Amino acid sequence: MEDNKVTVTIAGKSFKLSGYDPEYLNKVADYINQKHDECTSKESFRMLSFDLQSIFLQLNIADDYFNAIKEIEQLKEEIEKKNNEIYDIKHELVTQQMKHGLK
Amino acid sequence: MEDNKVTVTIAGKSFKLSGYDPEYLNKVADYINQKHDECTSKESFRMLSFDLQSIFLQLNIADDYFNAIKEIEQLKEEIEKKNNEIYDIKHELVTQQMKHGLK
Repeated sequence: MEDNKVTVTIAGKSFKLSGYDPEYLNKVADYINQKHDECTSKESFRMLSFDLQSIFLQLNIADDYFNAIKEIEQLKEEIEKKNNEIYDIKHELVTQQMKHGLK
Repeated sequence: MEDNKVTVTIAGKSFKLSGYDPEYLNKVADYINQKHDECTSKESFRMLSFDLQSIFLQLNIADDYFNAIKEIEQLKEEIEKKNNEIYDIKHELVTQQMKHGLK
């Protein structure tokens, strides 16, 4: 029987990982490979030592993550405002219904 | 005069980066260092070669990023539902106002 390991290739290196959905893992690998390609297209990146290249890539991915976190905070604020708006309109609706004896 | 380079230490290696807000860069560096510490506490990680450790860390950070992207999509769906709810209640309110000659 096959085990649940999925083979992915990142930065030209293939390795097996278990515990991931293959489709998801390939999506993440594609994203990382795109980052690798973007970085290695720059001479300033290629001149770095391997470990600095690696840390720079981690920073680059973490930067995307923190931008996403910022967007999450903004969306949560927007939801909070919409909740307040819904509360206010519902309050107005109920006030009118009471005023005119509506049910 | 000082340039705008900020020194950060990631995985025990210090290096200088420019073009980032120092507070933000330190926050990102802290996050990556925390990831490093979590990974290196596992023997299975320490047994990997340096380049595989590096790619595993990139995958780990990218996994956080994709989870954040998923949360963004869910929050956007929630906002869409709230917009529809607001539209419906406003419609009901206007209908009542017209019915009772309110302005």
